[in-house]
Amino acid sequence: MTVDATSTRIAELSEELTSAIPADRVVTDRDVIEPYLHDEAEWAPYGTPLLVVRPRTAEEVQVVVQRCIARGVPIVSRGAGTGLSGGANAIDGCVIISFDKMNAVKEIDPLERLAVVEPGVVNDDLRAACAVEGLWYPPDPSSAAWSTIGGNVATNAGGLCCVKYGVTRDYVLGMQVVTGTGELVRLGRRTAKGVAGYDLAGLMVGSEGTLGVITEITVKLRPLQDPQRTVVGYFDSIVDAGRAVRAVAETGLTPSALELIDRQCLLAVDAWKNMGLSADANVLLLGRIDTPGAVGDAEAEQLQACFDGSAATWSAQSSDQQEADALFLARRLAYPAMERLGPVLTEDICVPKAVVPEMLERIEQIGERHRTTIASIAHAGDGNLHPLLITPRDDEDARIRAQAAFVEIIDAAIEYGGTVTGEHGIGLLKMDGLAKELDPVVMDMHHAVKRALDPHGIMNPGKVIR
Amino acid sequence: MTVDATSTRIAELSEELTSAIPADRVVTDRDVIEPYLHDEAEWAPYGTPLLVVRPRTAEEVQVVVQRCIARGVPIVSRGAGTGLSGGANAIDGCVIISFDKMNAVKEIDPLERLAVVEPGVVNDDLRAACAVEGLWYPPDPSSAAWSTIGGNVATNAGGLCCVKYGVTRDYVLGMQVVTGTGELVRLGRRTAKGVAGYDLAGLMVGSEGTLGVITEITVKLRPLQDPQRTVVGYFDSIVDAGRAVRAVAETGLTPSALELIDRQCLLAVDAWKNMGLSADANVLLLGRIDTPGAVGDAEAEQLQACFDGSAATWSAQSSDQQEADALFLARRLAYPAMERLGPVLTEDICVPKAVVPEMLERIEQIGERHRTTIASIAHAGDGNLHPLLITPRDDEDARIRAQAAFVEIIDAAIEYGGTVTGEHGIGLLKMDGLAKELDPVVMDMHHAVKRALDPHGIMNPGKVIR
Repeated sequence: MTVDATSTRIAELSEELTSAIPADRVVTDRDVIEPYLHDEAEWAPYGTPLLVVRPRTAEEVQVVVQRCIARGVPIVSRGAGTGLSGGANAIDGCVIISFDKMNAVKEIDPLERLAVVEPGVVNDDLRAACAVEGLWYPPDPSSAAWSTIGGNVATNAGGLCCVKYGVTRDYVLGMQVVTGTGELVRLGRRTAKGVAGYDLAGLMVGSEGTLGVITEITVKLRPLQDPQRTVVGYFDSIVDAGRAVRAVAETGLTPSALELIDRQCLLAVDAWKNMGLSADANVLLLGRIDTPGAVGDAEAEQLQACFDGSAATWSAQSSDQQEADALFLARRLAYPAMERLGPVLTEDICVPKAVVPEMLERIEQIGERHRTTIASIAHAGDGNLHPLLITPRDDEDARIRAQAAFVEIIDAAIEYGGTVTGEHGIGLLKMDGLAKELDPVVMDMHHAVKRALDPHGIMNPGKVIR
Repeated sequence: MTVDATSTRIAELSEELTSAIPADRVVTDRDVIEPYLHDEAEWAPYGTPLLVVRPRTAEEVQVVVQRCIARGVPIVSRGAGTGLSGGANAIDGCVIISFDKMNAVKEIDPLERLAVVEPGVVNDDLRAACAVEGLWYPPDPSSAAWSTIGGNVATNAGGLCCVKYGVTRDYVLGMQVVTGTGELVRLGRRTAKGVAGYDLAGLMVGSEGTLGVITEITVKLRPLQDPQRTVVGYFDSIVDAGRAVRAVAETGLTPSALELIDRQCLLAVDAWKNMGLSADANVLLLGRIDTPGAVGDAEAEQLQACFDGSAATWSAQSSDQQEADALFLARRLAYPAMERLGPVLTEDICVPKAVVPEMLERIEQIGERHRTTIASIAHAGDGNLHPLLITPRDDEDARIRAQAAFVEIIDAAIEYGGTVTGEHGIGLLKMDGLAKELDPVVMDMHHAVKRALDPHGIMNPGKVIR
C-alpha cells in the first residue's frame, strides 16, 4: 500500500473509532506507537500498525473489534510486551489493543477465594493486593514485576512456583471476552467447580490472542503462604546440577521451587548488581520447601541430600527470608542481566524430568558445535529449560549460528519426548517447532477451531498457526 | 425405519465391522446389548442402538469411527454407565462403543509422576495401582468403585477431594483420541508443563463424547497422602450445617474434604447397611484435614470450632482411619442407598460458598412447595450440592412434581450466581439448564466448536447442545 493510501486508512479508521469512543483512546502518533510494536522476542519480525487503541472499558474494546471486523483489519492485543516469542508483535496494517489503561483489580473475595481483574493488571500488583487480604495468586513468571495478568493468561504463563502450584491455566476460573464475531460474553464461572458446556475459558488460555480479546479475568486464589525454607546447592557442572534435579524427582519430593542458574547468568547478574554469586558457584540450584512444620524440615533435609548426593560442591539451608529473596531475585534478574550484554535468543523447551541431565549436556554440545554461547536458567524441577543463546551485537554470522542452534535444541527436545514451549508460547518464533511437534491432523484441528471462533480471521492472524 | 430395514442395517454394519476387526468385538444380541442402553440418570430418554462394539485397541476404535462416518451412523462412547445426566444414553440407530475391554493401566512412571491408562480402567483400580508405587490419583467421584477414567474424563468428574485437590481436568496431561474425521491422534503432553498450541486435550475433558472418542489418557499423579484427621459434626438442621460450611470458608481453611449428608440419606444408609448413624444425627458434616504435623492439628481444631460455632449438636476429631473410612463409606453409599428406595432425580448445582445456607433453605422450600421429598448430599466445601429428588415408583404425578422442582432448583442456582452442573455434566437432563446459564452467543460458540471438530455430526449428537 502506498504511503498516501495508508494515511487515508489511518485517518478513516481513527475518525470512525473516535466517533464511538473517547478520542484519547486512539493513538496515531508514530513516536507514541513505537513502544507498542513488538515484545521482547529477539529477531522476531514485526510490522507497522495503523494505530494503537488504549481502551478503558470492555465496551470500548468491543467497539474496536466490531469496527475492525467491518473493515477486515487484524487485531493484536497486548499487555506489557514482556513476551519472548513474538506473539504480541505488530502485523502490518493492524490495530493494536493495549491494555495499559485497564489495570484495575476489580474485586478480591476472600470467602470465595477469587479475584476479578482487568487484563492490564501487573502480576506483582495483583499479588500485593491479594496479600493484604491474606491471599495468594501463585503463578509467578520471572517477569512478574512487569508482565500483566492478561498477557499471562494469553500465554498460559508459568513461573517459579509451578513445580508445586501449577500454571496460569490452573488459576483461571472465568473471563469476559470480545469474540471473533464482536460480541461481549462471559466464559467459565465464579464457583469452585463447574462443567456446564465446553471449557471455552480454558481454550482461551494460552491461545495468544488468536481466538478473541480478553477484557476481564476471574482467578482462583490460595491462602497466603507461610515463610519457606530455601535450600541452595553449588555445582561444578550443569550436568551435575541436572542429576540433582533428577534425584529430587526420584525421591518423590515436591519442592515449591527448584531453579537452576548457570555460571554465565551468575556473572551477568554480578556484573549488573554486584551480588558476588559467581565467586563461589559455577552452577546454582535454588530449592524451596513450604511444607509446614517438622515434615517440611525433613523435606528440606531430603532436598539438600539430593544436592549433596549429586556432587554439590557446597550446600546449605536457610529460613532467612531476606537471604532467600536475594537469591531468588538473582534468578529473576538473570534474563534481563543477560539482555544487557547483547541479543538473547531465549529457548523454552520442557522435557521429561528423567532426561534433564542428558538434555543439558546436549545443549552444551549444540552450543559448541554452532560456536554459540549458551547460558542457562531453568525451572529445573519441571524440566522447563531456558537456554539463552547469546550473540554479539550486529554479528550476522553469529545470529545465523545461534538460530541454527535454536532449531537444533527444539529438535532435541522433541526427540526426548518434550515440548518446544513450556511456558512462553508459540508466537512467531516457535511456529516451525509447533508444526514439528504436532501431528498434521492436530494442526488441522487447530485451524478448524481458529476458523470456528475467529471466522473473520482478524484475531492476531499469522501467529501460533499459519 | 421398519424392523426389516433396521435388521438389514445391523447385518450390513456388523459384517462390515467384522471384516476389519475380530468378530467377538461386535455385539448384536439384544439381551447382551440391554445393559449398555443408558446410564443412571433417572427419566432420561434413550434409544435403540444398532449394535455395541467392545474394542480392545485404539486402532479398532478408529476402524469403528471411520465406518460410522462413512455410513453417517452416530456414536455413543461409554465407560461404566454411572453417569447421572444421560450423556451415555443410546441414540436410535447408533453404535455404542463400550470400553469395558480396554481397562489396562499401561504405565505408571514414579519419576515423571504420571500414569497412562486405557479409558475403561476403573477409578479405584488406578488408585490402587498407583498406591503400590507410593503415588496417588486424587480425583475421587463417589462412583470411584465402578466408574472409569474415560467416563471421568468425558464428564470432568469431581469428587470428595476436589475441595483441596481439584477435579479430573486438573490431572489430565494428554490423551489419544479418534477425531471426528476418523484420525487417531495425540493431544496434550507428557511433560510437567507445555503450551504448544491450543489446549485441545483440555477441551476434550468434559465434552461428554461430543468431540471425539478418547482411547488413552495420560494423567498426573501426586505422592501418596499421609493419614488424615477426620472432623465430624452433627447438626439439627441442614441450614445450620450450611452455616458451618460458610464459616469454614470464612476462616480460610482448606480441608481435604467437607461433605454433607442429611437425615434422609443417613436413614437410607442405615436401612441398607445398619450403620446406626441416623440415631444420633439429623445432618452430618464430614471434614478432613491432611496438612501434616502440628499445623494440621491446629487446622483440625479450627475446623471443629467452625462446626461448634454453627450450632453443631455434637462434634469430634479422629485420626482412626478405620472409623474415618466407615464414615466416608456412608457418604459414598448415600446415593445407591437412596436409589434402593425408588427413582432418584439427582441435582448437581454448584453455588458460591457464601450462599450455601440460603441455597439449602431454598431447596427445602422448593421441595415443600412441590410436595417432593428431597434428600441432600453435598460436596459442601465446594458449594456443590446434590439434592436427591425422591419419588414413589410408578407415580406419574409425583414424577411431574419432582421434575418441576428440579427445574426450579436449577433456576435458583443460576439466580445465586451458580452453575447448573458442578461435576455430573449436561448430558440430556441439563440441556435446558445449560441454555439458561449460557449467553446465546456462547451457545453459538459451542456449536461452532462442535462443527469444527465433529464435521460429520456423529459424535454423541443431541447431547450437551442441540
